[in-house]
Amino acid sequence: MRVEIWSDIACPWCYVGKARFEKALAAFPHRDAVEVVHRSFELDPDRPRGDTAAVIPMLAQKYGMTEDQARDAERRLGDNAAAEGLTYRTEGRDHGNTFDMHRLLHFAAERGGGKAQDELIGLLYRANFAEERSVFDDAERLVALAAEAGLDPAAARAVLDDPTAYADAVRADEREAAELGANGVPFFVLDRKYGVSGAQPAEVFTQALEQAWGARPPLTVIGESASGSADGEACGPDGCEVPRA
Amino acid sequence: MRVEIWSDIACPWCYVGKARFEKALAAFPHRDAVEVVHRSFELDPDRPRGDTAAVIPMLAQKYGMTEDQARDAERRLGDNAAAEGLTYRTEGRDHGNTFDMHRLLHFAAERGGGKAQDELIGLLYRANFAEERSVFDDAERLVALAAEAGLDPAAARAVLDDPTAYADAVRADEREAAELGANGVPFFVLDRKYGVSGAQPAEVFTQALEQAWGARPPLTVIGESASGSADGEACGPDGCEVPRA
Repeated sequence: MRVEIWSDIACPWCYVGKARFEKALAAFPHRDAVEVVHRSFELDPDRPRGDTAAVIPMLAQKYGMTEDQARDAERRLGDNAAAEGLTYRTEGRDHGNTFDMHRLLHFAAERGGGKAQDELIGLLYRANFAEERSVFDDAERLVALAAEAGLDPAAARAVLDDPTAYADAVRADEREAAELGANGVPFFVLDRKYGVSGAQPAEVFTQALEQAWGARPPLTVIGESASGSADGEACGPDGCEVPRA
Repeated sequence: MRVEIWSDIACPWCYVGKARFEKALAAFPHRDAVEVVHRSFELDPDRPRGDTAAVIPMLAQKYGMTEDQARDAERRLGDNAAAEGLTYRTEGRDHGNTFDMHRLLHFAAERGGGKAQDELIGLLYRANFAEERSVFDDAERLVALAAEAGLDPAAARAVLDDPTAYADAVRADEREAAELGANGVPFFVLDRKYGVSGAQPAEVFTQALEQAWGARPPLTVIGESASGSADGEACGPDGCEVPRA
């Protein structure tokens, strides 16, 4: 079974939702048969690289609140994060373009497989939500995080230096999100059949995992079977189909 | 869309079937949205490591043919391979335990992603079917092929030196093949919904790709949507759900 998670590094509910999903997954009896893939979604794709701003004033302006109210909202988000065992800095975070991080996550999947990608997204969340130093517009920091996820730092730097690298892969994920009807993130898709929108409680993810597991369809066989037809040439424990003269 | 291919390196129809599938995939309009994953299947799991035998006498004994008849059968297999542009040595090949190659293919997927895995299986097929030197019971040869697929040779050697590494992953693939009803290989599974058994003609793979593409189900949403419920906390282009006080 496969779970695809569309998310953005700048999305606090994605950070929280990943932990809630993982809680459900850890208790799922078939967890070893579940593959997790991270997909790209930018909340703010038009924000230029280099345009990094403090979160609190940005929130105040966006929602028409005072900065104190924005701080309160961040604190409540921090409470949600803390309930999942996550550190969340409610003051002094910033916000910027995440395209390069998404490119790097595609590089991680291609060069390091699913484990490296999952590790890297976890490190990016930690860097953005839990640590003092900004993760935006700092290629060397991204290279260091990639290395921490087990990837080759020189190869990661080459990806960041080439703005076209994995750019199509990020755009393809974003198109797919739109095709699947996702307007926001996190957005979880199980076997391309079930969708879970938002940082739902772990119980909802448990239900989704169980439902998707139970719904795995029986296979419909296309073409002829391997049981002796020349068209379905195959090998089995008793040997290979011998080609006809 | 995802295509999983169960196969064995010792399976000539897997070598031919991969090429036929790839011909269909290359002409499929949505090929960029198709991910290919290789799964393990051993034709002869009880053959001990180190028990490597010449193919022609083995075939003659297995099918009760003369060695000349076995040679003819191999030549006809070679004709099938040649029709797909593949080199196939009909004389002097050998046959042995493939478990270590399957472990290495899992390592490739985990450490190098799908591209490295696909490249490595192609190199293993080439080594087994097209080249003079045996690919069986020769860890250094497998290390060299892994390096040719872009993997770290020292890490590949460590996997081969530890017989437990990725052993469970190989066994899990084999259990899944049995659960899906595969008695032989190659066995192709599209989105866990459609199965194609054997080295079918490219047209059958084209039909399977089109049918699976057309059958991608609409998503069933589980839990509440992200449109304002506190349970489905999410971020969108207009900002993040603000946690309630």
